[in-house]
Amino acid sequence: MTILGMPETAVAPLVRAVAEAPDRAAVAERFARAAWSRVVEPGDGDAGRLVAENGAEAALAALVARVRGEGAAGAPVIPPSALERWRPRVDAARVQLDLRQAARFAVSLVIPGDPEWPTRLDDLGEHAPLALWVRGDRARLRALRRSVAIVGARAATAYGEHVAMEAAAGLVDRGIAVVSGAAYGIDGAAHRAALAGQGATIAFLAGGVDTFYPSGHDGLLRTIEQRGAVVAEVPPGVSPSRWRFLQRNRLIAAATGATVVVEAGWRSGSINTAHHAAQLGRPVGAVPGPVTSSASAGCHRLLRESDAMCVTSAAEMAELLGEDGVGDGVAPAPLDADRLSATRMRLLDAMSTRAGRAPEQLAAISGLAPDRIRAELGLLELEGLARQRPSGWIRTVAESAAAR
Amino acid sequence: MTILGMPETAVAPLVRAVAEAPDRAAVAERFARAAWSRVVEPGDGDAGRLVAENGAEAALAALVARVRGEGAAGAPVIPPSALERWRPRVDAARVQLDLRQAARFAVSLVIPGDPEWPTRLDDLGEHAPLALWVRGDRARLRALRRSVAIVGARAATAYGEHVAMEAAAGLVDRGIAVVSGAAYGIDGAAHRAALAGQGATIAFLAGGVDTFYPSGHDGLLRTIEQRGAVVAEVPPGVSPSRWRFLQRNRLIAAATGATVVVEAGWRSGSINTAHHAAQLGRPVGAVPGPVTSSASAGCHRLLRESDAMCVTSAAEMAELLGEDGVGDGVAPAPLDADRLSATRMRLLDAMSTRAGRAPEQLAAISGLAPDRIRAELGLLELEGLARQRPSGWIRTVAESAAAR
Repeated sequence: MTILGMPETAVAPLVRAVAEAPDRAAVAERFARAAWSRVVEPGDGDAGRLVAENGAEAALAALVARVRGEGAAGAPVIPPSALERWRPRVDAARVQLDLRQAARFAVSLVIPGDPEWPTRLDDLGEHAPLALWVRGDRARLRALRRSVAIVGARAATAYGEHVAMEAAAGLVDRGIAVVSGAAYGIDGAAHRAALAGQGATIAFLAGGVDTFYPSGHDGLLRTIEQRGAVVAEVPPGVSPSRWRFLQRNRLIAAATGATVVVEAGWRSGSINTAHHAAQLGRPVGAVPGPVTSSASAGCHRLLRESDAMCVTSAAEMAELLGEDGVGDGVAPAPLDADRLSATRMRLLDAMSTRAGRAPEQLAAISGLAPDRIRAELGLLELEGLARQRPSGWIRTVAESAAAR
Repeated sequence: MTILGMPETAVAPLVRAVAEAPDRAAVAERFARAAWSRVVEPGDGDAGRLVAENGAEAALAALVARVRGEGAAGAPVIPPSALERWRPRVDAARVQLDLRQAARFAVSLVIPGDPEWPTRLDDLGEHAPLALWVRGDRARLRALRRSVAIVGARAATAYGEHVAMEAAAGLVDRGIAVVSGAAYGIDGAAHRAALAGQGATIAFLAGGVDTFYPSGHDGLLRTIEQRGAVVAEVPPGVSPSRWRFLQRNRLIAAATGATVVVEAGWRSGSINTAHHAAQLGRPVGAVPGPVTSSASAGCHRLLRESDAMCVTSAAEMAELLGEDGVGDGVAPAPLDADRLSATRMRLLDAMSTRAGRAPEQLAAISGLAPDRIRAELGLLELEGLARQRPSGWIRTVAESAAAR
């Protein structure tokens, strides 16, 4: 039996080194998706549609045939513009090399239908990734089901890194996974704090997971690999590029339940991640900061120009998931003004803690009717907030301290 | 002729010392409104309705008659509960004293219909003030027509005071008056910066304007009196109280085109001002700050729980008035990603500034079709962003510096 013209016995071991593939169909599907992730740039809608309509294997077979100048009646139709884009990269040897390279780095291939596949990615429709290359235990991708993306500037301030760490620590305390892009600054702070809190954390890279980028985060990414997962939609060997960074951002936004931007310059990749999240209907949070800090300008821009919610704590970030922000201590009390009726406030204002006053005097001072005053004084006395002395009514010190 | 039972010749000089009153009717109206502002607490809706329906003089005459146990058929009806509230304060001698005291402090009385009356206050309906006691040139109240309230915590941080000063300076630079409550902290910083910028600034006090409160701001309030105005709806001699502070906040919100909260604790009078503004349909701005600062917690609460707009500069505060935030330098450029088409970004990503590459090579690297690449390279060459060398196409350094 052959798979895309190659003997199954040659292809199967390569595939089985990176994925479970019990039969020919599974081997072919996985090989084809690995090939597609090499042939197209992330987010290629033509490829997404073609694979969705025909399956990865049939779609790839049609592409290979067209590249060879062969055409079969009834075969899937490759759009001419897409054919021109894909043709230079159709290379079976290259895909075999990708699979070997993946096996060498203990990378596994996860595709739609696998139990670990993050089904939220399917919301991307024809722009969904065709496969994920995962370094670390693929089972940990399940943590994405309850996850928040914490993203932000590489040029973060100490304030931003502090907030990212508090946020990540508070989220993993609540059993929520922290997802980010492993960049310097906010991303790194979020991953580190999640790891320190013994929580789940997942890094999405713009380039292949065989190369940990940025190199200064090699140690961090090794730890994430051991205790979380490092994920890319491009195969090993692909370098990061601006386009791939933007497409990686869409993955972070799509894979998580909510996206929080901690610090971001006015033009920032994190703003791009937030826009992706908003387009997918995912809640977006923006952490405010000093208006004097350009590192917070992008967050304030999101608060002004989008539906982003102002978030100031892990509890508020957890709320973005539609969960209660439980575990963050007591709920704040309402305003004084809400608690104290206007009548009571005006009466207490008119009373002294030392000079006793008659109800008539209190009426003149407060502008309340004497009958109302007498009734309210009775209540205040019962509550221990007022006392009657020979000289008249006084306010007790307790009320003074509590309500002022 | 008599006015409320007193000889006109006795009343007129008192009134004329604080307001223009060319005839008996004007004298009576002003005296009656002065009296009402003594009898009722700020925001008394019963008084507002009664005066709106009957005029201040007739309403007061009816009240006086009822207090004396007289009743005239056809006279305005005083609600019994209101009568009980007002009765202890009905005292003609006290009103005459108020007017004398006002004259001594060069306070003028401004009432609805006067050219200086801030007509925005009428939006308060039956809770509008019945008169304003103004220290400083009453003509300066006209500056309220284009004004922003800057309010905030007394326990402000250096950050908050800095932002308040920048905001006030930027607003008066645009010819917008700065209104606040003369408290320590944000209020004081806003007034001071407005004065430093030679701008209009108006302070609303919770107590009578004969006493400058807080006393530590005596010098500041004297300067505001000389160059702006100090205003209260209660007559001279009335002390501030919690209730009157809250009602003063409603005046600040109502008198201005927009309210900006610079720093505020979770429970704060400034939140109350913002709620008043929102209820009146006035735009509210909240200045973000560090989430680690409790002084910004109230601002973040407004951003989360109300329609308050995040504002980070005087230009954005001016925009709340529906004006362009002109004068704050150039508008920020759009995101890089917006400016650069996806094709161009992917092609530039694939090019090197040193190694020449053929279009076919660039196609394989970028995942773009070779024809598309050739067309785009032509455009890039025209724009000086790419150059053809014997070895192939390179990206020019200028693009590299500008777009990265």
